[in-house]
Amino acid sequence: MYKVFGMSASGNCYKVKLLLEQLQAQYRWEEMDILKGATRTPEFLGINPNGRVPTLEIKPGQYLPESNAILCYLADGTAFWPSERFERAETLQWMFFEQYSHEPYIAIARFICKFLPADHPRRADLPRLRERGYQALAVMEQQLARRSFFVNGAYSIADIALFAYTHVAVDGGFDLERFPAINAWIERVRAQPRFVKMA
Amino acid sequence: MYKVFGMSASGNCYKVKLLLEQLQAQYRWEEMDILKGATRTPEFLGINPNGRVPTLEIKPGQYLPESNAILCYLADGTAFWPSERFERAETLQWMFFEQYSHEPYIAIARFICKFLPADHPRRADLPRLRERGYQALAVMEQQLARRSFFVNGAYSIADIALFAYTHVAVDGGFDLERFPAINAWIERVRAQPRFVKMA
Repeated sequence: MYKVFGMSASGNCYKVKLLLEQLQAQYRWEEMDILKGATRTPEFLGINPNGRVPTLEIKPGQYLPESNAILCYLADGTAFWPSERFERAETLQWMFFEQYSHEPYIAIARFICKFLPADHPRRADLPRLRERGYQALAVMEQQLARRSFFVNGAYSIADIALFAYTHVAVDGGFDLERFPAINAWIERVRAQPRFVKMA
Repeated sequence: MYKVFGMSASGNCYKVKLLLEQLQAQYRWEEMDILKGATRTPEFLGINPNGRVPTLEIKPGQYLPESNAILCYLADGTAFWPSERFERAETLQWMFFEQYSHEPYIAIARFICKFLPADHPRRADLPRLRERGYQALAVMEQQLARRSFFVNGAYSIADIALFAYTHVAVDGGFDLERFPAINAWIERVRAQPRFVKMA
């Protein structure tokens, strides 16, 4: 049985939970409180030297970090990751976009707003994070104005990866009302079989 | 024939060039001067709405952005991307690590030092970038102390992805002498068949 080292409030961890539920896979969830240093213990650094969650235990001694690599592992051979060569690469394209051009702005803005004190100096970063985050949302809007899901019109791990922090972007001060295609896509994702909400 | 929209001084673009050479694939290179706005023209934004290079033209009208997604596309079905399920995911794990925990610090420090004026305000970011960059290098060192290449001891696109900015980290003020396993790995990558240098 899989074991997920994860923090329920993290979008990166929610991605893994959502896919496991949609695959009807069996797993145990080990809740890790990042803010209390759970990912910095010698024990956990032995599991993932980069000290991050989610990390998937496939079996004792076999561990896989990086949320989007975990999605690829779990989705391999299923309808959640297309088997056609170019569509596979397009799925990865959106997942790398998510980790490079989206998450560092939209997830970090949410973290600052939701988890740090109101007078924390990192609030000074918010204008720049929002500018870059809105750029990412505009790229998504353009794609979703033409397609119902990111790759070839079919729900995939690219949608799961991008849904995680997009649907809670309001927590970081983003106004999603500007993006009608994104809003319609969020509703399509929510309507997928075995969809579960983020904690 | 493939066409690569790329900037020769960019490590992300160099990844694609190195793999294409090692695959002995035919391609044309279209040099794009990012600093002069070549990725912000309406024409290029029609090709890649995120306005970034490298972007691969597979055939006219079929484009793939994101350096690491391009590596996966090109390496699919070759020895550069393992076919075993867990090894495939481990390869992706290191490629997501590269884009999230490595490139934003090591490549950006290099960009600031090499391409911006000596009195540019972004130089104030360098201490933080170096702290995070050294954390990424320490994670790599730990893996390379145990293995000759990142995944299962065989040269793969994970090595190409991480080599690109690691071997020029000195440009961003990083001291690689602290990392003997990384230095030995750099020499092993350089010794691969059909290796080509970065411009």
